[in-house]
Amino acid sequence: KMKSWSSLDTVESDFRPLVVIELAKGTKEETIEWLTQRIVDKKADGGAQLLIKPLVTEDGHENIYLVGASHLRLLLGAETVGLVKECNDNSMRAFTYSSRKTFKDFADDNHNFLTMSECQYIIKHELENLRAKSEKMIPGYPQAKLYPGKSIVRRLLTSGILVQIFPLHDREELKKLRHSWYGRVKVGYQPLDDIRCYFGETIALYFGFLEYFTFALIPMAVIGIPYYVFAWEDYDKYVMFATFNLLWSTVILEVWKRICAILTYRWGTLLMKRQFEEPRSGFHGVLGINPVTGREEPVYSSLKRQLRIYLVSLPFVCLCLYFSLYVMMVYFDLEHWALDYHKENESTFSSLMLYVPSIIYAVVIEIMNRIYRYAAEFLTSWENHRLESSYQNHLILKVLVFNFLNCFASLFYIAFVLFDMKLLRQSLATLLITSQILNQFAESLLPYWLQKRHNKRMKKRVSSQKTDADLSLAEQVNMEKEMGTYLGTFDDYLELFLQFGYVSLFSCVYPLAAVFAVLNNITEIYSDALKMCRVYKRPFAEPTANIGVWQLAFETMSVISVVTNCMLIGMSPQVDALFPDSKTDLVLTVALVEHLLLAMKFIMAFVIPDKPRHIQMKLDKLEFESLEALKQQ
Amino acid sequence: KMKSWSSLDTVESDFRPLVVIELAKGTKEETIEWLTQRIVDKKADGGAQLLIKPLVTEDGHENIYLVGASHLRLLLGAETVGLVKECNDNSMRAFTYSSRKTFKDFADDNHNFLTMSECQYIIKHELENLRAKSEKMIPGYPQAKLYPGKSIVRRLLTSGILVQIFPLHDREELKKLRHSWYGRVKVGYQPLDDIRCYFGETIALYFGFLEYFTFALIPMAVIGIPYYVFAWEDYDKYVMFATFNLLWSTVILEVWKRICAILTYRWGTLLMKRQFEEPRSGFHGVLGINPVTGREEPVYSSLKRQLRIYLVSLPFVCLCLYFSLYVMMVYFDLEHWALDYHKENESTFSSLMLYVPSIIYAVVIEIMNRIYRYAAEFLTSWENHRLESSYQNHLILKVLVFNFLNCFASLFYIAFVLFDMKLLRQSLATLLITSQILNQFAESLLPYWLQKRHNKRMKKRVSSQKTDADLSLAEQVNMEKEMGTYLGTFDDYLELFLQFGYVSLFSCVYPLAAVFAVLNNITEIYSDALKMCRVYKRPFAEPTANIGVWQLAFETMSVISVVTNCMLIGMSPQVDALFPDSKTDLVLTVALVEHLLLAMKFIMAFVIPDKPRHIQMKLDKLEFESLEALKQQ
Repeated sequence: KMKSWSSLDTVESDFRPLVVIELAKGTKEETIEWLTQRIVDKKADGGAQLLIKPLVTEDGHENIYLVGASHLRLLLGAETVGLVKECNDNSMRAFTYSSRKTFKDFADDNHNFLTMSECQYIIKHELENLRAKSEKMIPGYPQAKLYPGKSIVRRLLTSGILVQIFPLHDREELKKLRHSWYGRVKVGYQPLDDIRCYFGETIALYFGFLEYFTFALIPMAVIGIPYYVFAWEDYDKYVMFATFNLLWSTVILEVWKRICAILTYRWGTLLMKRQFEEPRSGFHGVLGINPVTGREEPVYSSLKRQLRIYLVSLPFVCLCLYFSLYVMMVYFDLEHWALDYHKENESTFSSLMLYVPSIIYAVVIEIMNRIYRYAAEFLTSWENHRLESSYQNHLILKVLVFNFLNCFASLFYIAFVLFDMKLLRQSLATLLITSQILNQFAESLLPYWLQKRHNKRMKKRVSSQKTDADLSLAEQVNMEKEMGTYLGTFDDYLELFLQFGYVSLFSCVYPLAAVFAVLNNITEIYSDALKMCRVYKRPFAEPTANIGVWQLAFETMSVISVVTNCMLIGMSPQVDALFPDSKTDLVLTVALVEHLLLAMKFIMAFVIPDKPRHIQMKLDKLEFESLEALKQQ
Repeated sequence: KMKSWSSLDTVESDFRPLVVIELAKGTKEETIEWLTQRIVDKKADGGAQLLIKPLVTEDGHENIYLVGASHLRLLLGAETVGLVKECNDNSMRAFTYSSRKTFKDFADDNHNFLTMSECQYIIKHELENLRAKSEKMIPGYPQAKLYPGKSIVRRLLTSGILVQIFPLHDREELKKLRHSWYGRVKVGYQPLDDIRCYFGETIALYFGFLEYFTFALIPMAVIGIPYYVFAWEDYDKYVMFATFNLLWSTVILEVWKRICAILTYRWGTLLMKRQFEEPRSGFHGVLGINPVTGREEPVYSSLKRQLRIYLVSLPFVCLCLYFSLYVMMVYFDLEHWALDYHKENESTFSSLMLYVPSIIYAVVIEIMNRIYRYAAEFLTSWENHRLESSYQNHLILKVLVFNFLNCFASLFYIAFVLFDMKLLRQSLATLLITSQILNQFAESLLPYWLQKRHNKRMKKRVSSQKTDADLSLAEQVNMEKEMGTYLGTFDDYLELFLQFGYVSLFSCVYPLAAVFAVLNNITEIYSDALKMCRVYKRPFAEPTANIGVWQLAFETMSVISVVTNCMLIGMSPQVDALFPDSKTDLVLTVALVEHLLLAMKFIMAFVIPDKPRHIQMKLDKLEFESLEALKQQ
């Protein structure tokens, strides 16, 4: 029988479990032995040099393993993954073991120098980089082929031997975080640094963006309220509101880049070097030589991928867009029918029926979005992208285009084909509020309720009257492994993106949208926090320096909103009245104003620096130092 | 008396003069002694470790010095400036002395491993980086203050002790280059690699762009000819031409990025690390600590600079733009007057008079452009930018905006205020052809003629019947030091930029513009080549990876041209006839088409990768290798 403790050079008495590995039930003994041996083997022998310990559950099965590492191993791992930490002189530098003494808060016995999520990220990185040497297959599973350099863990995952790897929660820390995050009712900022320490940069940046975006919407909401209360419909007031909105949306997106730079500089990810990306786990192809690395790995023709994208995915997406437009037309028929019905038999029932088509349509949109999402995932996966980032970009693009059309096509139709501002306002309100309620429910509250019920049943089975903090490690692991997996910030950003669309695209018709958005986002912060802390397994931290493609998506939306708002203002009867003689002059004036606004937007985006001066200076200083160091060599 | 030969560790018998230093006449003996000593001093003692030799001219004055360096010194310098060279395995790598054996064509006795222009670039870099140690002033000139770390050569230049530094021509090489470049009439590409070896990357890239741009214009010119010949004025043909032009201009700009990457990869500059930029020579301020480098150097408040830019420069530029518009209105009055005059007395003289206002205006525009240029240079210099690059960007922006308005305002006025397509066509032709003739004359032919006359006089004085190749070194230096200084590619790019404007902004009104542009560019290649080889001093090579801000300028122009062309098509009577009932529908349709075209442009720019696949792969490979090397450490 294998040893519970690995034979590491520095045997530590306090094994701290960080990551859980769950193998399939009935995994062959030889496979387990081989895997654990590879995990504990020295780096020099091609191992990961980590600690691993089986977790003996009550039913005697041994399919769950806890992975940890010695303090020294983690520090060396921090250097490998390129973690950036603060030095004693307050500058941020890539951590190296040899210069460890120059880092703030470093002491040989300070095991909190690396946060727990950083340790878990290091272990994940080391496990994923555990590569096959001369093995042709996974021992015991001849169908699970290996080749030199192939990531063992990825092959184990794809062949189903490894069920999941996930980092453990830290019950104490989580309790503290929950308390400072949403435990008490308070006015103030979220504890972003604590969130980052616990969940990593990607998630902290999402919450940072959500908070920033909510604050940024407040001026719009405040200015929007009197428009609703006093029913202002004067031409000049509308123009002022729209102009303010357009410039404001440019400013907030530019300022976000600066705030993002401040946050990620403090967290060290702004300076983190991009790691070389390995092929994503789903990537397949004929074994060949990668021209970049010179290593043997699956190779897939780029031409084939292009053909798949342009000849299959693109037509499919277009077809879906067409279908979505078709559904929209059906909705308008229904709407028309409901109106007729109401006119014929004026009753409470018929007046309620007026709202039915909108609500049905909102629900159908949500359903279509979700179905399309699966199709998009399947197609993008079938396109066989080599890198996870390229897969993500193609997926996001597909989903964004469809969601955009699905959510806004009807509003565009009402506004620019039917010219019905009243209906537009009503539809906008219905869509916005329905989708917000649906989202909050489907995303957080429903899973929370399910999770809670499940936990109760679990606890009842395990022991009668324990609180969360009292649970034993085995009980904690068993509870957490059943929790849902957080699938990344995609859906959360998408929700914000669509909300931004509702607020900015037709802002001059429905100034109250910003108010609803602010209210939604305040509850969203709480429900998303709840979701992170209570519903899902702890996710692995993912270092990131910005919100990536979403910045571009939001900027594109703000460009489109210039066009729509200018058109809406041009169509308002008040503006119409200013050009009594010629409608052509009106259209020309509106087009001119639109072009000027667009030019102003681009100039503003160009003039506002992406990084604050003091951050830029620190970056320059680092670059200068590295150049000087190069010269000294 | 100082030694003619420097005391370098490796005394070379073949001193090859590379760079000429001209001191002011009557420079004090102690200054000369100090300067030459600093230049020959070992690197370890803070010198430049170069070779220097006085040139004794016939009048006995000793104010001209020749600078060279040993082969070993140049190789070490190549490493310092970060030159990238081709290796034996065909990859491009930064040259290091220790790995010299792995580079293609390297041999210890091969003195052609570095091209002459690279050697001169290295010497320039070393001279500019010769820094004051403890000197408080330049010996003999108490008013020329120094502080530790101040570039000595820059101080010598600003205090007028050093008249100029320039690289020597290589008569043999130049003759070969001239022959293959423009010596014989031939159809084919320019010898870009040879141009790059002789003049450096910035100039080679300009000629590469000029050639590419000319080829890229040929399809436009070819399609444009039948429009002129058959006087096609059908709506559909115009729309086709304009649409082709718009998409074509996007494609050519995107493809240029790819070609530029191929060229600069081959030349090594694509991979060259950006050197840390020193303050430009005109920069002044209070002595303080640079927060980036930690060195003592002049510091100037960024706030003050911003105030100068926004409170002085910006209003001044606006005023100039207003004045330019005023001049334009005067031109239209003149035009009107000439027309009236022609109507009153129909004569040959009066019909000739019709062309006078346009020609006067074209000449006035050129004059205004040139005067404004001086003002812009003065203002930008007064803004006191720390870096040469930031100075250049602000200068280019100022000059571009003014030139754009100056050249195109009248055309915009004619097109969109007067709605006179016939006048537009006529003005466009006059402006385009006048400015092309003026430019070719003022830029190349006039200086060439002056230079030739001057050379003849010089030669007559020196010796009666020598050809260029027979001149002694002293004679060559004396001839070259009197030649004009090439002020960079700014004017050449500006000319192309304005030409691109003439071709693309109103392409659907005057399809023949592209034909004139192609013809002009073919002669431009020859006259610019002549200018580089015969008129000016040899310029120092400047490594560069792309055409910088000009790419942005051309792209902006192509966006503006979408707007103007759509408007022109919308105003054409043929399109007008398609919407007999409502002019509003016409305007809306045009606006829709314009937005679709713009969207298409942006999508195309996004989809076409900036670097060809094989170059991107090589870059990825290098990055991967450096990451691997970092891990090995």
